[in-house]
This record gives sequence, C-alpha cells and structure tokens, in this order.
Amino acid sequence: MNLRDAIRTIPDFPKPGIMYRDITTLLTNRRALAEAVIQLSAPYKYKDVDNVAGIEARGFTFGTAVAYELGAGFVPIRKKGKLPFDTFEQDYELEYGTDTVEIHADSIRKGENVLIIDDLIATGGTAEAAVHLLRKTGANIIGAAFVVDLPELGGVERLVRMGIPVTTLVKFDGH
Amino acid sequence: MNLRDAIRTIPDFPKPGIMYRDITTLLTNRRALAEAVIQLSAPYKYKDVDNVAGIEARGFTFGTAVAYELGAGFVPIRKKGKLPFDTFEQDYELEYGTDTVEIHADSIRKGENVLIIDDLIATGGTAEAAVHLLRKTGANIIGAAFVVDLPELGGVERLVRMGIPVTTLVKFDGH
Repeated sequence: MNLRDAIRTIPDFPKPGIMYRDITTLLTNRRALAEAVIQLSAPYKYKDVDNVAGIEARGFTFGTAVAYELGAGFVPIRKKGKLPFDTFEQDYELEYGTDTVEIHADSIRKGENVLIIDDLIATGGTAEAAVHLLRKTGANIIGAAFVVDLPELGGVERLVRMGIPVTTLVKFDGH
Repeated sequence: MNLRDAIRTIPDFPKPGIMYRDITTLLTNRRALAEAVIQLSAPYKYKDVDNVAGIEARGFTFGTAVAYELGAGFVPIRKKGKLPFDTFEQDYELEYGTDTVEIHADSIRKGENVLIIDDLIATGGTAEAAVHLLRKTGANIIGAAFVVDLPELGGVERLVRMGIPVTTLVKFDGH
C-alpha cells in the first residue's frame, strides 16, 4: 500500500500556486486508512501512551483511530469557543493575523504521556501551539506524528527544536 | 464500563436551561473510548460496511475509529467551504437560520454500504442532512449510530421515518 498514491493533489487550491494535499482520498480508502493508522501508531506501541491529542478538525480523524489502536484516550484541541468546560488557550500566528486554540484544562493529568497527531505539518504553527497548550496541562509530550510533511516549510525542525520527536509518513516537495 | 458515567453534564451551556452532554470526557477515558467504538461497531461487524460517514467535527472522532475497527474507509461530511474538491451540498434548519453541509461527490461509489456515525442525536437535523447528502452519492445507507440520544427531541424517530435503522448507546432525558 503506497500511502502517497492515496493522497490527491489539487493544484491552485485554496489559491494560485498552492498544491493542496487532500487526505480525504486516503481516509476513504480502507486499506490506506488502516495502513496510515498502523504506521502512525507503530513507533508508540510500547511507549505507554495515555492520551492522543488531535487538532481540529482533520486531526480528529487519524487521532482518534490511533488512540483506539494504542488503547489510549483522545484529547481534542479545538478552535476557541468550542469546548464547553474550563480551558487553557494558546494564540498562534497565521499568514494574516492570529488564531486561538484551546484544550480542556482537566483533560490531561500532570505527567501523562501524550502523543500529538495531525494530518499534515507545514510551517508547524498549529503544532507548536498544541505543544504550548499541552505543556500548560503538565503533559509529558512523547512525540508528534503526521501523515503528510511539507519539509520545505520547516515544521518538523520547529518541533524538534522544541524537544519533540517527530515522525511523518509521506513527504511532498513544494507548498 | 458504564459509558453514561464517562459523559460529563454541564448545566446551562451554551445557554440557561440546556444540560450540555460533554463527550470529551468519554473520549479522554481510554476504557470508555474503546468500549464506545466496540459498541458502535458491533451491530455492523458482518454487514460489509464500505465507508463510515462522520459529521464535522465530533463525528470525525468516533467515526474514524469505527471505520478502522470495521476495516472500512472514512468519509468526512463538512461545513460548507472546507472540502477542496467537487461536492454535493445540503442545507438544513438550525434553531435560528440555516446551515450547509457538503460531501465530496466522488467519495462514495453508487451502491456502497455506508454507516453514519455521530457523537449525539438531538433533533436529527444534521443527521437528516447527512442522509440526503449520502443519497445524492448513490450510497446504500445501512444505518446510523450515535453515542448519545436525547430521545425527547425526536431525532431517532425522524431517521427511522426516512428508512434508516438507528442504534444509540446512552440516552439522557431533557434537552
């Protein structure tokens, strides 16, 4: 199963010059979905993961399946205003302006082992915000895993500089 | 494992008089997550499910884990404007106004067996929109399964009247 072949590329979306990597075709392909979940989980199978943290919205897909595969819980990191209980917040930079993500303050106990999962890492801005949020809970972040890496945008190096081990399944050149 | 006990109730959220059923505490509880995924999947284990359709955003969590458990693919149903390729659209009524959901037009082949998954069914408005969307793709909808049912709001009956078998795991009185 070649995961790369299961990902659709849409040129000039959402704007001219961007090659959009569409992972919905991978999700919908039963063999590719199973393979991606197994590959994301494998390095963490014996690392006693307590919770998988996934970033809204596509991180909820692979994230919960990996949590189930690892026998862990799943912690959603959401856009501001979506979580109903007490939260920690973290701002992060967008191309134009800023956005805010939140996590339930009681979702992770101090010292629990947490794995971050998302579909794609580009500049790593959202993932860095997730790291800051998780550190506010006292989590022990044991790693971050992504289906797609766009290495030219430097997201993986950004997380590694923060002390987070990173695994990715498929790399694409360009943005 | 009592799934009901894993769900947190938040009184007066998002407005006075509403008892909000917060499934994030169930997701974060590793035993409850595994139990919910197994219970959602069990009735469909031998029904040859090709794809699980999950509704943004919380339906992405249980939906993808159930897809993985069943060896099926996962098809995201998203808010308008989020999917990058050709879509079918469906409007649905909210308490005030309307909203629109979309599905990739090529995500399901005619006659494929599809199971709808979401975290909660209330009035069933979103689920009904999902049924209309899936019928546009030619899917054979074999059922819909929800973690939480608020039976006083009539959502399950609404789907059953449309010919959709429904299973739910936990019922709560009130809204």
